[in-house]
Amino acid sequence: MEDSIFTKIIKGEVPCHKIYEDERTIAFLTIQPFAEGHTLVVPKKQVDHLWDLDDEEYLNLLAAAKKVALHLREVSGKDRVGMTVKGFDVPHAHIHLVPINRGDGVSLDQNDLPITPNDELAVVAAKYRMQ
Amino acid sequence: MEDSIFTKIIKGEVPCHKIYEDERTIAFLTIQPFAEGHTLVVPKKQVDHLWDLDDEEYLNLLAAAKKVALHLREVSGKDRVGMTVKGFDVPHAHIHLVPINRGDGVSLDQNDLPITPNDELAVVAAKYRMQ
Repeated sequence: MEDSIFTKIIKGEVPCHKIYEDERTIAFLTIQPFAEGHTLVVPKKQVDHLWDLDDEEYLNLLAAAKKVALHLREVSGKDRVGMTVKGFDVPHAHIHLVPINRGDGVSLDQNDLPITPNDELAVVAAKYRMQ
Repeated sequence: MEDSIFTKIIKGEVPCHKIYEDERTIAFLTIQPFAEGHTLVVPKKQVDHLWDLDDEEYLNLLAAAKKVALHLREVSGKDRVGMTVKGFDVPHAHIHLVPINRGDGVSLDQNDLPITPNDELAVVAAKYRMQ
């Protein structure tokens, strides 16, 4: 199996704006955010889709997603942190977490958004990074 | 706290097209589906948003969502089962599960869709109901 772009990030071969990391999970800003703080939570094990993780791996990933979501909600000050899993863009399971306010009109399912410049993402990452 | 529409469903005061139920979780077809088989997975405990469930309740709900998602994927024959949590429509935590194919153009975040007639939902529910 070829390394996914996320596995290359996990291996340090491709840079990312990391928000959170533990033994089996990494979370970093997407370069095509739906809203400020839009983060991808990714298992270090390269599995195509979320439902194909075994139960223990899946629950471990979702537990990490909750930690990150609560942090994003607190730091963003938004009402909610939306969650989406679609799975057609990168063949490596990942969870989108997006801070959103009621009525701000942010869709949790968008494609082909512009890529945010690296220096702008660095500022957002510094705001949201978990210690 | 006033009973949510989902609590009324759980209490049997409002009908639903049930797909799955266990001690702490119920899953039923939404009446405004993004695609055939679009199911809501709901904790019986009425909590406003997913992230406000305690860790044990949250992981219990997500474990049930995985069971339902694998079933929807198998029965629908679709490539994926997408998952979304937004949380502005009903103030009772719920997970959207939507069978989707790559390229079928289904968005996982839609509003104000038409309500599917009850007899059509009954046919879909019979197809997807878990034993």
